[in-house]
Amino acid sequence: MLSIETNQESGKKFLLPNFNGSPNQSLLPLTSTVNHENRLIIGGCDVTTLVERFGSPLYIVDEETLRSTCRQYREAFEKYYPGESLLIYASKAWSCMALCNIIASEGFGFDVVSAGELYTTLQALFHSGLSYSDNSDKIYLHGNNKSLSELNLAIDNNCTIVVDNWFELETLAKIAQTSNKKICILLRFTPGIECHTHEYIKTGHIDSKFGFDPNDLEAVFTFVSNNSAIECKGIHAHIGSQIFECKPHQDLAGVLVDWMKKAVAYGLPIKELNVGGGLGIRYTESDDPPSIDEWAKGICTAVVAACKETGLPQPKLIAEPGRSLIGTSCVTAYTIGSRKVVPGIRTYIAVDGGMSDNPRPITYQSEYLAVIANRMAAELEETVTVAGKHCESGDVLIQDIKLPVTKPGDILVVMATGAYNYSMASNYNRLPNPAAVLVNQGEANLIIKRESLEDLIYQDLLPERLVK
Amino acid sequence: MLSIETNQESGKKFLLPNFNGSPNQSLLPLTSTVNHENRLIIGGCDVTTLVERFGSPLYIVDEETLRSTCRQYREAFEKYYPGESLLIYASKAWSCMALCNIIASEGFGFDVVSAGELYTTLQALFHSGLSYSDNSDKIYLHGNNKSLSELNLAIDNNCTIVVDNWFELETLAKIAQTSNKKICILLRFTPGIECHTHEYIKTGHIDSKFGFDPNDLEAVFTFVSNNSAIECKGIHAHIGSQIFECKPHQDLAGVLVDWMKKAVAYGLPIKELNVGGGLGIRYTESDDPPSIDEWAKGICTAVVAACKETGLPQPKLIAEPGRSLIGTSCVTAYTIGSRKVVPGIRTYIAVDGGMSDNPRPITYQSEYLAVIANRMAAELEETVTVAGKHCESGDVLIQDIKLPVTKPGDILVVMATGAYNYSMASNYNRLPNPAAVLVNQGEANLIIKRESLEDLIYQDLLPERLVK
Repeated sequence: MLSIETNQESGKKFLLPNFNGSPNQSLLPLTSTVNHENRLIIGGCDVTTLVERFGSPLYIVDEETLRSTCRQYREAFEKYYPGESLLIYASKAWSCMALCNIIASEGFGFDVVSAGELYTTLQALFHSGLSYSDNSDKIYLHGNNKSLSELNLAIDNNCTIVVDNWFELETLAKIAQTSNKKICILLRFTPGIECHTHEYIKTGHIDSKFGFDPNDLEAVFTFVSNNSAIECKGIHAHIGSQIFECKPHQDLAGVLVDWMKKAVAYGLPIKELNVGGGLGIRYTESDDPPSIDEWAKGICTAVVAACKETGLPQPKLIAEPGRSLIGTSCVTAYTIGSRKVVPGIRTYIAVDGGMSDNPRPITYQSEYLAVIANRMAAELEETVTVAGKHCESGDVLIQDIKLPVTKPGDILVVMATGAYNYSMASNYNRLPNPAAVLVNQGEANLIIKRESLEDLIYQDLLPERLVK
Repeated sequence: MLSIETNQESGKKFLLPNFNGSPNQSLLPLTSTVNHENRLIIGGCDVTTLVERFGSPLYIVDEETLRSTCRQYREAFEKYYPGESLLIYASKAWSCMALCNIIASEGFGFDVVSAGELYTTLQALFHSGLSYSDNSDKIYLHGNNKSLSELNLAIDNNCTIVVDNWFELETLAKIAQTSNKKICILLRFTPGIECHTHEYIKTGHIDSKFGFDPNDLEAVFTFVSNNSAIECKGIHAHIGSQIFECKPHQDLAGVLVDWMKKAVAYGLPIKELNVGGGLGIRYTESDDPPSIDEWAKGICTAVVAACKETGLPQPKLIAEPGRSLIGTSCVTAYTIGSRKVVPGIRTYIAVDGGMSDNPRPITYQSEYLAVIANRMAAELEETVTVAGKHCESGDVLIQDIKLPVTKPGDILVVMATGAYNYSMASNYNRLPNPAAVLVNQGEANLIIKRESLEDLIYQDLLPERLVK
């Protein structure tokens, strides 16, 4: 295992060869090395050569990091939870067929939040030759405003629906009445625990668009227990994203078990407890997320303890990692172009992508780190701002980063771009979406084709009356 | 002409039938009316019926508003500027073939910022039967980091390149040396005037990724005058976006004419002066942008005065409206779904789109207004927050808006969504992009097809080795 670190005195970056942390704590994919030409190698592939072959910008996904992350999650839950457990991938982090295939083959189920994500997952399972029946009951449909067609698509494919609100519950009751379909659900409640990375607050009523208000617990249980066509498998809650503490999730486990106990009183024996996701990853050197093992241990032991205390049987425990599953498996390689020096103020270097392929900096002021893939040993001599190529002042990927003095054609690699990059990508300024390539033991396979100029006008129509 | 207003006492919205302002000051498209069933009509089409016919969410573009806006711009420049003038559409606001067609047919040229926008414009001209030679010299390619292929595409199509930096200028000089291509350019400088809507600052060095530093003026002019294969047509500067004052642009005119004078000393007779764009539009009732006429008058008279003062001939004056050209021509219609009441805190209503079709609220905290298209006369009885359907807490389109008590199936129309909505749209959560329809005198034509689930996996590939 490898990680990248910076020597605080020299400012020089180096690869840490015996990195013992969990993949969510590593800035670079675990297979990263530097070859004798001082070029960055990921998955046995020279990143600079990958860009020559597949074009730029390029998302590069390291299969070994992704599989290793999946396995660490599964092993941790098997180690710390004596009952049945299931890990499902929060595919909103990055939903595409190849990633669904890999993650399914590691025994994961799927958390999907739309017909599009559900369709992608089903297509991936179908075309992968993976057993459909083994997997469809591991798919959970989320969302605060699912459409009727989304609900029907999920029901028709034996997926479990994570019911978010009264409108949805009543809609499902109507579907159940007028059809013979069996409808499996979890109930999502607003947990009253909200996380802001390093702190959390507890309130009775959380101002969130998601989930039933906990004050409606009894009313919801009554409604469900009176609808025999709806099978309530369990309860779900989610407390946030990019969380660096274990305590909030442990508290959540207690809240959920408490709700489980109340459900029993309404004749609803809860079989599944879904604690959501939210484990953070390392984007910058100061980020310090807990390991997958620690996070899993905290949750598992809290559920076991709460069940023991309440005398309830251990439910099937479900967790939904997204960012922490895919985030550090991927980097984005860009080609450096123009440079602008604003004397005494700032030096900009511009790359051939930006807010269209990574909207996180402009949307959330997210920070990233980068290296120069074709000159990994070069001294970090200047502080620059990495701008994108979009016609927008805010299109800046990294503010004030120490890099070698770069020249046009150098390959800048931004780390930890697996989550919420491709999935949030746009065609702003009509830039085509980049390609994505999967690397493993020296082999590189396209998993997402680069868009062409023709693709950009594929949906455009010219009404006849406008044509002379 | 029409506009929508709110009675401050009753809180009731009403349509103002004799709206005399310019289209950028109107919240709703100019053809908006309400029929006897109290339903919103745009371009002679019932919005509720459009949603039934074309699906939801739906972008609805009013052709009359767009053409009227184009004409007001042209008339104002013709009225106030005695020399030649050209208006070019900043197509990054929304680049698609049908809109390019309409705007070109109104005599506009195009400001494009990528190969994608250039390709879209060229295809629109080609398929529209509009004269190609009449239009290609009205296309200007912008960008802080244009690729070599973008530069070549522009040169091959006789477009003018707005040169942003030294790397680009040197690249063009190399292209000119090794080919017989004629290369027409404008030079973009950082103007030293920056606008933040209601205030502006003047500094010697602006911290912007765009344009040459003004300290490099002489060096740039020297370089260009020594390269006979590069024809420098003029100078460009841009000061910002969504600006509500006229003074900054008038100051900019003075700065540009001053640079013109300097250029002459280097044997560069400047023929074109491009003042960029930036006129704001009305998104909410408190927004108060100047009219197109006022904005044009301010710029034109300032250029005329500065030329008179310096004894220079009047250049061809170019302006680049984007947001103010398309912004208020379009609304987005959504269907309302779930409702969540957080007692004592907030009521959420959720629609079937959100941050994927309109990323401006989550990216820039932009504010919007909305009406209920199928019940325009209903009392505004409650304050709600309009949430999108994305699995993201920040996916809120409008915070705290007064609306009638809505029910699932009601059609919520968000106003002034023409600029930076479709153009910045993503497939986040794998939501398909909405369709767009052009309305005019009761006719409705699809100009952008709705994406299908199949379209979402169109770029996905499954490497053979992953398939069992």
